[in-house]
Amino acid sequence: MPGRALVQWEENRRNAPAPLTVDVYTGGPAPEGLDGVVFYQVPYAPSTQGVDERLDMIARMPDLEVVQLVSAGYEHVLPLLPEHVTLCNGRGLHDASAAEHTLGLILAAQRDLPRWAVDQREHRWAPAPSRSLADQRVMIVGYGSIGKAIEDRLLPFETEVVRVANRARPEEGVHGVGELHALLPEVDVVVLITPLTERTRGLFGAREFALLRDDALVVNVARGPVLDTGALLAQNGRVRAALDVTDPEPLPVGHPLWDAPGVFVTPHVAGGSVTFYRRARAFMDAQLARWAAGEVLENVVRPGR
Amino acid sequence: MPGRALVQWEENRRNAPAPLTVDVYTGGPAPEGLDGVVFYQVPYAPSTQGVDERLDMIARMPDLEVVQLVSAGYEHVLPLLPEHVTLCNGRGLHDASAAEHTLGLILAAQRDLPRWAVDQREHRWAPAPSRSLADQRVMIVGYGSIGKAIEDRLLPFETEVVRVANRARPEEGVHGVGELHALLPEVDVVVLITPLTERTRGLFGAREFALLRDDALVVNVARGPVLDTGALLAQNGRVRAALDVTDPEPLPVGHPLWDAPGVFVTPHVAGGSVTFYRRARAFMDAQLARWAAGEVLENVVRPGR
Ligand SMILES: NC(=O)c1ccc[n+]([C@@H]2O[C@H](COP(=O)([O-])OP(=O)(O)OC[C@H]3O[C@@H](n4cnc5c(N)ncnc54)[C@H](OP(=O)(O)O)[C@@H]3O)[C@@H](O)[C@H]2O)c1
Ligand SMILES: NC(=O)c1ccc[n+]([C@@H]2O[C@H](COP(=O)([O-])OP(=O)(O)OC[C@H]3O[C@@H](n4cnc5c(N)ncnc54)[C@H](OP(=O)(O)O)[C@@H]3O)[C@@H](O)[C@H]2O)c1
Repeated sequence: MPGRALVQWEENRRNAPAPLTVDVYTGGPAPEGLDGVVFYQVPYAPSTQGVDERLDMIARMPDLEVVQLVSAGYEHVLPLLPEHVTLCNGRGLHDASAAEHTLGLILAAQRDLPRWAVDQREHRWAPAPSRSLADQRVMIVGYGSIGKAIEDRLLPFETEVVRVANRARPEEGVHGVGELHALLPEVDVVVLITPLTERTRGLFGAREFALLRDDALVVNVARGPVLDTGALLAQNGRVRAALDVTDPEPLPVGHPLWDAPGVFVTPHVAGGSVTFYRRARAFMDAQLARWAAGEVLENVVRPGR
Repeated sequence: MPGRALVQWEENRRNAPAPLTVDVYTGGPAPEGLDGVVFYQVPYAPSTQGVDERLDMIARMPDLEVVQLVSAGYEHVLPLLPEHVTLCNGRGLHDASAAEHTLGLILAAQRDLPRWAVDQREHRWAPAPSRSLADQRVMIVGYGSIGKAIEDRLLPFETEVVRVANRARPEEGVHGVGELHALLPEVDVVVLITPLTERTRGLFGAREFALLRDDALVVNVARGPVLDTGALLAQNGRVRAALDVTDPEPLPVGHPLWDAPGVFVTPHVAGGSVTFYRRARAFMDAQLARWAAGEVLENVVRPGR
């Protein structure tokens, strides 16, 4: 199993156990000689679009056995992966980072932080009462690793959480997504944190917006296409939104979402804070040690056949 | 005891028990005939400055027995209060509101939310890694009612909390303010949430800033003068700040704090979100019922003699 590995961080190269040959590749033009690379950690780059050398080079690795992502989302890599290659993702590494950004988005929307930021720019002191997070009922659509971390952080704010996943798990108080429409009229905030799949594409559209109360808030920290941009724009501020991911992404200059009433946008930064990098490096040390020792890898999302 | 009461909210007038005559006064020019007013709830107005009719009229209430504030801070009213009048404050009513705004300020500073808000205005999609709240050591200076509520909300973010109050309470892990200087070099975030007193005026100044690590964050949700504005400006962004209260307040157009590097300002809005109003109305119903029944009042901060 040991052989040549490509990783992103110098620290992981330094810490790698003896039988491994480890090189550092941080992105950009592919390094020489991809023959012999058996373990490839795709360098983490927030919000990648279009042609991506980091992924294209997978096709030029004849000896590849494992592709390791440090992102949680992996749907974009599946079509590029030979059948025999195992895919591992970064499940868990983003939980703290993405969950705290989600709380930041919710608090920003409820407590008017974007307004105060713009007022500060313009030297305007104009206090006004705001909404609260306390007393709100918050639905988490995608009650997985990050969804649970969001719940942990929400509960002390005196909120009530409604859990939704793909399949119902009544023993854990988790609703199945089939109950979504019945539950939407009763919630104040909806957080989307599912993977992007054929079932979640367009999951939140005109019908779902229509079921929400006036002034409710939809937060998308999943992937842009999980929320239907046209449907959001069409309801013209009746329901508010806080989006870390958008469709299209990146959002081009002049796109109506930038100036849509009641919409706050951050540029796909939920997962990529310093705590993620710290956790990702530690995970990579451990994963390379498992690989070198011939042990079972963690976070396998598609085993090679 | 029963007699005429002045309150801010129509709902409290409607709910008042029979023996009380209750009128509504929401601020502005004083109503006719202040004779006979025995219970006066000062209308809540965020961030009041200068001449304040709401407070000046206390001097024209010869029969006054109780002044009721719904703010937590009360230092500004003490000099206006005849000796025999009892003062009650709004301790507890702001806990959820002020604590969630504090978390909003901390997350905004760590996760660059003001930057994303301004970028959105300018249609700029420019992701960059940010700081985290996770793994940070957060000191709460003023471990009282609101300070505890802040701690409750901080802990699930994988932070460590350092508690500081006026007097040490070792059995609760609370440090006395005398230990402040010894503790400051070890913390990443400092939250100021003390009352404004002669001892807390200027509590955080040049010496305290100098003891903090580069890039640490100071959050002031107490009162403007608890933090020395000149000292904050003098260290020129080495330590960051998020301020809901300022000195001077309101901050005038052109004041250097508006554009100071690493400073985020909100206009004294921590306490005044909808959850506060809901709680304050409920408290006032109960307080008026206690008053009408001749029971001991809650939240007495200075008994009349
Ligand atoms: N904005 C960012 O920077 C950022 C950062 C990290 C991750 N993400 C996104 O977050 C996603 C979730 O990450 P994770 O680590 O929490 O994944 P996870 O642990 O696999 O959890 C995914 C959850 O989504 C649920 N789900 C799947 N399909 C669904 C559907 N049709 N309706 C409702 N729920 C559905 C799953 O339900 P079951 O439990 O029933 O399977 C599961 O609970 C990632 O795939 C990624 O796209 C975004
Ligand atoms: N920004 C806003 O919108 C907003 C909203 C609400 C309140 N506030 C401010 O927040 C303040 C605190 O409210 P609260 O309800 O939490 O009050 P509280 O329950 O009375 O707690 C005050 C805390 O401050 C501590 N303290 C007093 N002097 C100190 C000193 N010299 N050094 C360190 N700690 C000291 C006290 O210590 P001991 O426990 O040892 O007495 C106590 O723990 C209010 O007075 C008000 O000014 C601001």
